[in-house]
Amino acid sequence: MELQHETQGNWHVALGGVTLPRGFKAAGVHCGIKKSRPDLALIVSEKLAQAAGVFTTNLVKAAPVLVTMEHLKTGCAGAIVVNSGNANACTGETGIKHARIMAAETAYALGISPGDVLVSSTGVIGKTLPIQKVSEGIRMAASKLSPEGSSDAARAILTTDSVIKEISVTGQICKGNVSIGGICKGSGMIHPNMATMLAFITTDVAITPVMLKKALVQSVNESFNMITVDGDTSTNDMVIVMANGLAGNAVIDEDGPDFQEFCEGLRMVTTSLAKMIVKDGEGATKFVEVRVQGAKTAEDARCIAKTVASSNLVKTAVFGADPNWGRIMAALGRAGVDLDPDLIDVYIGDVLVVRSGIANNVNNTCTCGKSKDPLVAARKVLAEQNIEITIDLNAGSSSAAAWTCDLTYDYVKINASYTT
Amino acid sequence: MELQHETQGNWHVALGGVTLPRGFKAAGVHCGIKKSRPDLALIVSEKLAQAAGVFTTNLVKAAPVLVTMEHLKTGCAGAIVVNSGNANACTGETGIKHARIMAAETAYALGISPGDVLVSSTGVIGKTLPIQKVSEGIRMAASKLSPEGSSDAARAILTTDSVIKEISVTGQICKGNVSIGGICKGSGMIHPNMATMLAFITTDVAITPVMLKKALVQSVNESFNMITVDGDTSTNDMVIVMANGLAGNAVIDEDGPDFQEFCEGLRMVTTSLAKMIVKDGEGATKFVEVRVQGAKTAEDARCIAKTVASSNLVKTAVFGADPNWGRIMAALGRAGVDLDPDLIDVYIGDVLVVRSGIANNVNNTCTCGKSKDPLVAARKVLAEQNIEITIDLNAGSSSAAAWTCDLTYDYVKINASYTT
Repeated sequence: MELQHETQGNWHVALGGVTLPRGFKAAGVHCGIKKSRPDLALIVSEKLAQAAGVFTTNLVKAAPVLVTMEHLKTGCAGAIVVNSGNANACTGETGIKHARIMAAETAYALGISPGDVLVSSTGVIGKTLPIQKVSEGIRMAASKLSPEGSSDAARAILTTDSVIKEISVTGQICKGNVSIGGICKGSGMIHPNMATMLAFITTDVAITPVMLKKALVQSVNESFNMITVDGDTSTNDMVIVMANGLAGNAVIDEDGPDFQEFCEGLRMVTTSLAKMIVKDGEGATKFVEVRVQGAKTAEDARCIAKTVASSNLVKTAVFGADPNWGRIMAALGRAGVDLDPDLIDVYIGDVLVVRSGIANNVNNTCTCGKSKDPLVAARKVLAEQNIEITIDLNAGSSSAAAWTCDLTYDYVKINASYTT
Repeated sequence: MELQHETQGNWHVALGGVTLPRGFKAAGVHCGIKKSRPDLALIVSEKLAQAAGVFTTNLVKAAPVLVTMEHLKTGCAGAIVVNSGNANACTGETGIKHARIMAAETAYALGISPGDVLVSSTGVIGKTLPIQKVSEGIRMAASKLSPEGSSDAARAILTTDSVIKEISVTGQICKGNVSIGGICKGSGMIHPNMATMLAFITTDVAITPVMLKKALVQSVNESFNMITVDGDTSTNDMVIVMANGLAGNAVIDEDGPDFQEFCEGLRMVTTSLAKMIVKDGEGATKFVEVRVQGAKTAEDARCIAKTVASSNLVKTAVFGADPNWGRIMAALGRAGVDLDPDLIDVYIGDVLVVRSGIANNVNNTCTCGKSKDPLVAARKVLAEQNIEITIDLNAGSSSAAAWTCDLTYDYVKINASYTT
């Protein structure tokens, strides 16, 4: 699994995924919701863990989301059961019953309480879950739980994804070794309104549920929420973190150096997963980072970065390697953020294409002594696979980044015939 | 020009476009901004007219938008000059100077004041306007003004549009004949954030500037704003109406039967033009009307209709004739409107696919006696060219409609290589 920065501060990438942290096992099996690919995953902590979740803001919430929100009220959990191929959304009372059966079957197989099982589903909306098959799958997965099972679980939660998405890191908190691992799925053109995004994170850190939730919300805001637009979430989106405390560090129960250290590791995990989702965007051929700097507030910067990153016109221009920076200006102007267009600089890669709100027509002189037309140079940047667009508002000192991919023929192809 | 309803209440479709109302002339010429297609239009009233405008909410506003907003402060105007092929946006002080020159050249050619000329541009952002060519074009157009010039003007304002968009209606207000005509351009995937939308409307009704503005805002909210998402506007969008009073009716200066009558005619014009934009959507093969009924408020209904109509996933499903109603449910759930999913019915055409928030699995019995699977029937509806999606919230008595087209391969193709 590609990762640009193998080390960030105190944290290092290590193999193992959600089963790297002590005391976690996982499994992924095929139970028959899909024709042949794996479609049921279990992630289990040997010790009841502190747990926190972030859920879709969509008012149409799938049954597993409702059941998991209810089960998380205690702030702890022992297992996560996930099926793919069927969202169990818009399925009414039957759907709720099925989500409860999934929790009960998992609890029975593991010898824990149903209220300590979190349930998640992804796939087609509006179809009745084949609960018999799912129940058999749960028993099968429970018998296959393994401390090397992360990749199997990661594979079993995929839908239109083309690669599994898995990351884990280790670091030190108060001189003790702590690990954090995560798996996720999602590829639908990046907006989770376009396809469900699920992420499951495990860690052996010792932390209170309140601080765990706080860390999760912060890291989701700077990662998964930067590949989406506020409120644009599917019926099934969820991000769950379980912390079983087996690292043996002094319990993190307030803000401070230990908490900040944990947040940095968690952000490394969630940001890596978020970028993997973008890189696996449906039909995507290019990865785009939109950086906004010089903003008055971080919220302003995030809002503009997300608006530009989610513009269909910007995304198609990137696909066509067309340095049409007018589309970037038009998108940022409608972000709902107070700004002065006349102060704005825009770079495509390191090429300044907009200076103080208007076209930069000053040719750059490259080292070879030849002058280069900025649009010619920008077109070259856009022909590459990894593209950075930088917007400097020159109005403050806050910054943010959002990630997206290009919009291609294949996106339309994939989405014109997905289900039924 | 196709139009479903040739008569609405007191109003009838008639030929003539913006030159149908008494005292208006128009012209469209090629001045050389584009290679060979017409690119400059004039619309002129022989008598100074009351005028009102609605403009882009984008903070990055093109120079002609800023100049026209300034000129409209008097509430009257004598002419509109429009160029296509160049947006004169993100062009700084030079752009403002060029927009003022366009007004001055037009005023000089017509013998009116520059402050009575409204200026509009559409095309590529960030390029300097070839003002010499534009000035020559204005003189040429002024010499070609004609009471049959509407179609020429309509043609000269187009960019990626594939057809001209023109409509005019006549009706009676207080026993006098009144006409209203309009032309517009816009095809960019319907969101005006995707491409500039311009509309110019003329009428010979006698009305005060305040009531004219009120009528315009109302009709735009129910027409052009229903093919967009709030705030998603380009740098150049504008809708202008000029009313020269030559119909000789008693001046409309307050709300009442005459005002309502005028609003109905104006709405017929703006709704027709808005639908033409959708039907000419970039790469579009199908026309979709999203109707929301049973809402608590009209604003709720509008908001849901627009959110569903602008969902990429719904639009690709329509392209693929895939009755994937889960995408409709997911889209309406994130509209930001308080609703109860369990009350919602969804129809594709006249096929009930969602009943009380879940799949309608009850087969319909058709007249031939054979039962029909709702999904099979819905797929048939989606294979047609004109599609109605109806969402009944069963929570009130307000309703609204939004219009969109499908999202196709050709949309990507057109937008992957537009400019530079």
